[in-house]
Amino acid sequence: MKQATHALTLSTRGQGLYEFTLTLCEWLQHQQMQTGLLTVFCRHTSASLLIQENADPTVRRDIKAYFSRIAPENGPYEHNYEGADDMPAHLKTALTQVQLSIPVVNGSLVFGTWQGVYLFEHRTHPHRREIVLHLIGE
Amino acid sequence: MKQATHALTLSTRGQGLYEFTLTLCEWLQHQQMQTGLLTVFCRHTSASLLIQENADPTVRRDIKAYFSRIAPENGPYEHNYEGADDMPAHLKTALTQVQLSIPVVNGSLVFGTWQGVYLFEHRTHPHRREIVLHLIGE
Amino acid sequence: MKQATHALTLSTRGQGLYEFTLTLCEWLQHQQMQTGLLTVFCRHTSASLLIQENADPTVRRDIKAYFSRIAPENGPYEHNYEGADDMPAHLKTALTQVQLSIPVVNGSLVFGTWQGVYLFEHRTHPHRREIVLHLIGE
Repeated sequence: MKQATHALTLSTRGQGLYEFTLTLCEWLQHQQMQTGLLTVFCRHTSASLLIQENADPTVRRDIKAYFSRIAPENGPYEHNYEGADDMPAHLKTALTQVQLSIPVVNGSLVFGTWQGVYLFEHRTHPHRREIVLHLIGE
Repeated sequence: MKQATHALTLSTRGQGLYEFTLTLCEWLQHQQMQTGLLTVFCRHTSASLLIQENADPTVRRDIKAYFSRIAPENGPYEHNYEGADDMPAHLKTALTQVQLSIPVVNGSLVFGTWQGVYLFEHRTHPHRREIVLHLIGE
Repeated sequence: MKQATHALTLSTRGQGLYEFTLTLCEWLQHQQMQTGLLTVFCRHTSASLLIQENADPTVRRDIKAYFSRIAPENGPYEHNYEGADDMPAHLKTALTQVQLSIPVVNGSLVFGTWQGVYLFEHRTHPHRREIVLHLIGE
């Protein structure tokens, strides 16, 4: 049994879903792991992780628009001095998650046909987001 | 230290919560694992996983009705050609999760008294849903 | 490779976010683990876990108020005999999560600068909440 860890940085250019499934698959390939568990952890409170459909881009646009409707910028927030997009960003992060674990079977992540892994950026301005990967198995 | 993996298929008959706690417990029993971590992964983007109360069925009905209120079929969605239930299904999946990890202590999953594991089906038509289990420990 | 498990009890005094990041860090310190994965599991269906900003307390107040707006006490619930706060508590738990896994790198949990771990209590009356920790690594 062995472990591997890795730190990724993803650059974002405003709110939306940024796919990085391929980055995960490629890193896994180099670990020569047949069976295991990959954990993806986002080190932020205003960006989150999502596994969603990777086929039709309208799904991602609808997801982005939906979360902006249910966590709107003009809500009755006490915490408002970091910009109108800041408190909604915390709420969207709370409604989704900052950690995902994906089993590895036969050397591959067990994603379904339509599943992709996304960083969900909730801030308006460009950011550099740090993601930590942890893999355990053999 | 050892690992085990397993693929489950669950049949659904419309929207709602389908409990499969017992299936997890029974599979675990056969692995003779005293201490470990069980990860449950749902390979879909229109069905998700939930740990919820397994006592009163009205809780499950309220959960189903609630998610249909906050992610309604008649929303202003761009992605609408796969049926009125499709985009709400993606949103409900994003609001819940497709992965759960549960510690194993003294040979049992550490669920609380009222916790059960559910597949939350978000589509109207019957589906076969694939769940992957990963167990590590000893 | 080794494992460790631990059971924590946290006392809550009404709805809100209760930080226990330090408790996790201190327990980890005693395990002398350099690389690994810590899983935190909440054994309840009316309290949940959240990683959120640990700097400005207004963020936590806004999160608490927001979840009470989107899962209100006066909703059209069938399940209402355990108190007006009960069904909203199940919904808030479903919208967040009862499990988190955090990688350990160089002997520390890889939290970002502003991340803290919170128990999110959704019931009005005081409760004792059980949290199970599972650590694997070396």
